[in-house]
Amino acid sequence: MKLWDKGYSIEKKIEQFTVGDDRIYDLKLATYDVEGSRAHARMLAKQGLISNDEIAEIEQALDQIQGLIQSGDFLIEDDFEDVHSKIEYLLTELLGDAGKRIHTARSRNDQVLVDLHLFFKDELRDITELVKNLFDRLMLLADQHKEIIIPGYTHMQVAMPSSFGLWFSSYAETLIDDIYFLRAAQHIADQNPLGSAAGYGSSFPIDRSMTTRELGFSTMKYNVVAAQMGRGKLERSVAMAMASVASTIARMAMDVCLYNSQNFGFLSFPDELTTGSSIMPHKKNPDVWELIRGRCNRIQAAPTEITMLTNNLPSGYHREYQLLKESIFPSIDSLKACLDMAEYMLQHVIINKNAANDERYRYMYTVENVNEEVMKGATFRDAYKTVGKQVGDGTYKPISNLSHTHEGSIGNLCLKEIREKMNSALSS
Amino acid sequence: MKLWDKGYSIEKKIEQFTVGDDRIYDLKLATYDVEGSRAHARMLAKQGLISNDEIAEIEQALDQIQGLIQSGDFLIEDDFEDVHSKIEYLLTELLGDAGKRIHTARSRNDQVLVDLHLFFKDELRDITELVKNLFDRLMLLADQHKEIIIPGYTHMQVAMPSSFGLWFSSYAETLIDDIYFLRAAQHIADQNPLGSAAGYGSSFPIDRSMTTRELGFSTMKYNVVAAQMGRGKLERSVAMAMASVASTIARMAMDVCLYNSQNFGFLSFPDELTTGSSIMPHKKNPDVWELIRGRCNRIQAAPTEITMLTNNLPSGYHREYQLLKESIFPSIDSLKACLDMAEYMLQHVIINKNAANDERYRYMYTVENVNEEVMKGATFRDAYKTVGKQVGDGTYKPISNLSHTHEGSIGNLCLKEIREKMNSALSS
Amino acid sequence: MKLWDKGYSIEKKIEQFTVGDDRIYDLKLATYDVEGSRAHARMLAKQGLISNDEIAEIEQALDQIQGLIQSGDFLIEDDFEDVHSKIEYLLTELLGDAGKRIHTARSRNDQVLVDLHLFFKDELRDITELVKNLFDRLMLLADQHKEIIIPGYTHMQVAMPSSFGLWFSSYAETLIDDIYFLRAAQHIADQNPLGSAAGYGSSFPIDRSMTTRELGFSTMKYNVVAAQMGRGKLERSVAMAMASVASTIARMAMDVCLYNSQNFGFLSFPDELTTGSSIMPHKKNPDVWELIRGRCNRIQAAPTEITMLTNNLPSGYHREYQLLKESIFPSIDSLKACLDMAEYMLQHVIINKNAANDERYRYMYTVENVNEEVMKGATFRDAYKTVGKQVGDGTYKPISNLSHTHEGSIGNLCLKEIREKMNSALSS
Amino acid sequence: MKLWDKGYSIEKKIEQFTVGDDRIYDLKLATYDVEGSRAHARMLAKQGLISNDEIAEIEQALDQIQGLIQSGDFLIEDDFEDVHSKIEYLLTELLGDAGKRIHTARSRNDQVLVDLHLFFKDELRDITELVKNLFDRLMLLADQHKEIIIPGYTHMQVAMPSSFGLWFSSYAETLIDDIYFLRAAQHIADQNPLGSAAGYGSSFPIDRSMTTRELGFSTMKYNVVAAQMGRGKLERSVAMAMASVASTIARMAMDVCLYNSQNFGFLSFPDELTTGSSIMPHKKNPDVWELIRGRCNRIQAAPTEITMLTNNLPSGYHREYQLLKESIFPSIDSLKACLDMAEYMLQHVIINKNAANDERYRYMYTVENVNEEVMKGATFRDAYKTVGKQVGDGTYKPISNLSHTHEGSIGNLCLKEIREKMNSALSS
Repeated sequence: MKLWDKGYSIEKKIEQFTVGDDRIYDLKLATYDVEGSRAHARMLAKQGLISNDEIAEIEQALDQIQGLIQSGDFLIEDDFEDVHSKIEYLLTELLGDAGKRIHTARSRNDQVLVDLHLFFKDELRDITELVKNLFDRLMLLADQHKEIIIPGYTHMQVAMPSSFGLWFSSYAETLIDDIYFLRAAQHIADQNPLGSAAGYGSSFPIDRSMTTRELGFSTMKYNVVAAQMGRGKLERSVAMAMASVASTIARMAMDVCLYNSQNFGFLSFPDELTTGSSIMPHKKNPDVWELIRGRCNRIQAAPTEITMLTNNLPSGYHREYQLLKESIFPSIDSLKACLDMAEYMLQHVIINKNAANDERYRYMYTVENVNEEVMKGATFRDAYKTVGKQVGDGTYKPISNLSHTHEGSIGNLCLKEIREKMNSALSS
Repeated sequence: MKLWDKGYSIEKKIEQFTVGDDRIYDLKLATYDVEGSRAHARMLAKQGLISNDEIAEIEQALDQIQGLIQSGDFLIEDDFEDVHSKIEYLLTELLGDAGKRIHTARSRNDQVLVDLHLFFKDELRDITELVKNLFDRLMLLADQHKEIIIPGYTHMQVAMPSSFGLWFSSYAETLIDDIYFLRAAQHIADQNPLGSAAGYGSSFPIDRSMTTRELGFSTMKYNVVAAQMGRGKLERSVAMAMASVASTIARMAMDVCLYNSQNFGFLSFPDELTTGSSIMPHKKNPDVWELIRGRCNRIQAAPTEITMLTNNLPSGYHREYQLLKESIFPSIDSLKACLDMAEYMLQHVIINKNAANDERYRYMYTVENVNEEVMKGATFRDAYKTVGKQVGDGTYKPISNLSHTHEGSIGNLCLKEIREKMNSALSS
Repeated sequence: MKLWDKGYSIEKKIEQFTVGDDRIYDLKLATYDVEGSRAHARMLAKQGLISNDEIAEIEQALDQIQGLIQSGDFLIEDDFEDVHSKIEYLLTELLGDAGKRIHTARSRNDQVLVDLHLFFKDELRDITELVKNLFDRLMLLADQHKEIIIPGYTHMQVAMPSSFGLWFSSYAETLIDDIYFLRAAQHIADQNPLGSAAGYGSSFPIDRSMTTRELGFSTMKYNVVAAQMGRGKLERSVAMAMASVASTIARMAMDVCLYNSQNFGFLSFPDELTTGSSIMPHKKNPDVWELIRGRCNRIQAAPTEITMLTNNLPSGYHREYQLLKESIFPSIDSLKACLDMAEYMLQHVIINKNAANDERYRYMYTVENVNEEVMKGATFRDAYKTVGKQVGDGTYKPISNLSHTHEGSIGNLCLKEIREKMNSALSS
Repeated sequence: MKLWDKGYSIEKKIEQFTVGDDRIYDLKLATYDVEGSRAHARMLAKQGLISNDEIAEIEQALDQIQGLIQSGDFLIEDDFEDVHSKIEYLLTELLGDAGKRIHTARSRNDQVLVDLHLFFKDELRDITELVKNLFDRLMLLADQHKEIIIPGYTHMQVAMPSSFGLWFSSYAETLIDDIYFLRAAQHIADQNPLGSAAGYGSSFPIDRSMTTRELGFSTMKYNVVAAQMGRGKLERSVAMAMASVASTIARMAMDVCLYNSQNFGFLSFPDELTTGSSIMPHKKNPDVWELIRGRCNRIQAAPTEITMLTNNLPSGYHREYQLLKESIFPSIDSLKACLDMAEYMLQHVIINKNAANDERYRYMYTVENVNEEVMKGATFRDAYKTVGKQVGDGTYKPISNLSHTHEGSIGNLCLKEIREKMNSALSS
């Protein structure tokens, strides 16, 4: 059953090409399609466009369908080109004409739009929670290992003393920046597009404020053309917010892979969480972190892909918008898995308490020596030259007692302030 | 004068390669570098790291340098590799040792970071204002031309009646989504990184809360490693927010170019705002809109470029971060020019009041006919078939009186509500 | 069975995360894995590393496995993490110790590499054939419709007379440029990496020239580190060549969607090859072309995705290289489907013989008028002004007899020369 | 002077926006514009469209202009919007009407196209030479240091023995893959577009074969629409070939930065070729390599940028194609500088002969032990378990005498074969 069937048969080849994998992605939207239909039906009833009897029957039927979805028994068979067709088919099967009547004053274009807005709202909320979990784990680890020094690098050269406290909580605080983008995307998703029909509204006297309330949206996309134009833009907004999170995680994974190598040896993981080599029996590879890095790097390509799909298209719906699902849905699952897995791995991280205890790191204290000279009255530039000379002629002696006390430094991590900033970002 | 001069000459070739165009971009940062220096110096004075006499002299010297910058007389000559070297040189020239002392407890890494945070704050504010101006123009035009019908398209096929009211205000409302991203980027920029030194803090007893207040930041990037990690991430956040705006403008430009073609003829521009052809004397080309479209499409590539520059680099400063300026600075100027130019062009747009008055658009009213049948009691699916049959056998007659009344439709643009949503987004 | 099993259980969660969808993609590699194994085994036999009896048994077992693959009965169950494990398992099941011996002097790293080189060689050959088919169709259409004029556009403005002959064969000739990239990718794929083991070769006295001949490669990647470094680079080379083809097809699809709209009406397709609207009974949407455009645009993002996955990684294998399959395998299928579908659609294209017969196109002949003046002795610039004045004051009269005769113009399409260039590109 | 001046003044603001930085980029095209004009003029003379006297004068004038260009005295002042206008102005100034007559049968569209084809041909040739120089340097270093062992890594874990011989020549051999793409781009550039005028040819009886020969092109873009469609596609082809080279160089730079760090210490550079820190006197940072890495990563974004600019635009010229120069011209200069600088730095590389002499690398010989067991008759899998057990219980003893002899391995680098492959690729 194809909704646009006009009596002639569309060749099988064409159908496969046009439907593609859409049925698979649409399963994720089924629950939202039912709730969107319910809100729409109630509104139609309130406006007198369907009768009280009909709405009661429709809601009962929608409950049944929602039941199928929740139990995993809802399928989109090859006879149906998408979730909307399948649900309309079920409604018609259950209710006859009343099932057809729900299509009054809406189009598949605004059905899929409202499904997507609801779906992304939920997914963004889940991602935000996973980010918060990872943040909490990192903050815990920062507190736990705040005394352990590691070298800090610039230009990949040993530079100055850092610490596990600094390193863990730096990624935690960076995640707050990502929260701002997640919140922005959430604002964009949290607007009801229902009622825009095929993108130009309709002549039915519908009540869009009512469906906005029913579906729990904070506001609506008023302009129906703007609502339709959200297709692609919404997906890209979600993708950009996810890319922001992914860039933080990917960099952390890179650090972990490096620090876990024999050339650094700052941290490691239990055997069960590493993998081996098919030809080198001594290897304990950080595959999980490499895949976190790789998956997060792929996620960062999603906004580009979406831009390439949509840019230079004039306004109005285009069929390839369907392909946006392929660009964004797998990225969501992938990011959630990465956040979950990163937090899981960090639960089991093994810290090398003697990480900085190696001759190759002795020069990381030169700045401390310079600063000591400055505190004694030298200008920075002169002190810099003195210590530089000591390094050059081999007379340099590192000072061992670190006294970093300012906000955000090794000795004063400001974990409390960072937690407060996160909470404030979450509630913005 | 190179700050890191260690007594041996760096070959000219290397210097050219490493400095690149940095001096040009750094001119934009000069004013912020002076203010960052002032805040840092005051803080050093308060902490007793420089004397009261010194701070007075330093502030006076900074005033002089700021004067040079404001009058356009500040230059970064080939002797200097960046703005920081030049300003330190001027200070030292004016003050001797006191000029050197300002470098206490900071590094070029946090100098450029604080410059960038301040610079992006200002630029994001300017972009936001330009977006608001364009929004206002679009809203005015929507109101002015709300009665004029144009065809609405789906699949690039004539679909249903739309209007200039809908079209103009759809882009206005879409700009609100972009504001959410601009605000997110603003939150990320509005954090003081000063005091992070080379990315690992220092042993000087500096007061970062004081410089945060002095520089007008809402909060600080507490963790010094996080502050350093903001390099690249901050630029990408700004780039993503700009890409969001750019995607809206680029699509509008595509619509304009299409609507301005002889095949549509919905709108046009005065001769002075179009350009001609070197071989076709009848041409009046919409070059400005094509360049708006092209520039906005290029801007959308900036986040990709920044990601490619920075991803998979471990934490800590890397020299190529300097190249980020080349990726983001010209994009900012380009976006501002596009916003300004789009608003300017729209001031002069000439609307074709008879745009929809063409035989080829007669079928755009079929949905109205279908809806009329539905209002008389038919199911949507049956009405759809009836009208489809009329179209097929040539008996179809369009209905002429449109009665779209629901929120966001042709007859009810909700301009007031859209304005309120914009204001609320701006103040978030 | 995991090859790197070291006696402790890897948690299920980790396994799912690390294996991902790899089993699905690996099915495409099974046939190549068998042939790679056969060549490796024969070489081991020749070098005396396995016995003559063993090689006979191994070849028989590989025949059996190849039979399973060809009949569609080869599966990679959840017990196996990839195709290599499954094939080694089958060999060991059939042969015992001899099955294990085939792993001598190779690693999964070079197994997957040789599989990919062989796979891409075949796929590039298939894509090239599909490009050639499309080329032939376009050339046929160009010849068939060479007399039919359509307007040519610049700046989306009606500019000068073009023709269906020019339009069809322009895409044909452009495909030749894509062939150069396909051939470059083919050269890169056509190098044997087998023998590189985990990327650093081995101490076994293997004969790589022999496996190069056995597998039909033109040459080998000599340096084993270079062979390993081909991972990612090979995929990106294929992706870039595909992106080149895709950009040509996507643009053609954009033209088709535009020309098929009511505002152009240059061409159309039979009802069976278009789709309808769920609410507008008159619509006949070019969904197939929209999806060709969209899919081809997504394909153009694959090189970016691959670059993001791989850039800034130091040399040597990294686990996320596995994810490259997800970036490139679906793109190959998608491009092949688009090429096939585009050719199929063009078989059925309906040309509007009166496309140019519309008042709005009358100015497209102005250049002809200008040229006529020039042929009579005026300078171009003066003739241009004269005709411009006629257009301005409404006295302009188009000339109707076109006499374009130069190479590649409306009247002289040079189809023979274009065919020769294609053949020469194909055999380069 | 604007060629399309129709008598009304275009506002200054518009002009600045539309011309942008085009004048700067156009300077690079001046020499080609003159030669394109010369070939066009000669052809017009041969066809009788200009007289013998005129052509003599024109050639003399073009010689004069070429002289200005070669001596650096050719400028494009603000009065001119591009190189074509300036050269036409100079011709007209020198010759009067004859100067105007050269514009017969061509358009700025094919002028810029032919300029770009000629320009890219030259630049691709230069890049190819620089790649060959770097190849030669790497091969020399490989030969020179072929005995020096370094650890080979997989998963960033110490894996197996590699060598400087392998490492240097791996990048050399990889550059051959890049040559295939450079050659493909060269084929695409090496087609004469002149005569396509504004993209639809002309009614003048021009001889395109003659200009093809005169300008040294191997063939022409026959179809005039295809010639025009090359705009953007040509740039992207060049960008993709450059991205291929850049990816090789960027990875090598990443290896160098890592190997130069204190944690690896495999290689270093003389003080004069490193830079210092403004606060850490001991630092010798590999800034040149970091900037090579960063610049090469930016170059890899150019194809994406070009795709975003051009995709989904219908056929025919669009004004934003002008912006393509900004995307590709600086990338060319940047890649050439990187290739030059990389070769220069490698001239001075200091190799650590004892790189592998560290306890942390002892397990890199485990595969050798496994192989030894296999050569004695064990199956690979059993030998793997035996050695794995030794590693686990601390009884493992590395074997020291490496005997890698197969093609492309440590002991048999096949430098001669790699050189032959390069030569064959260069002459393809």
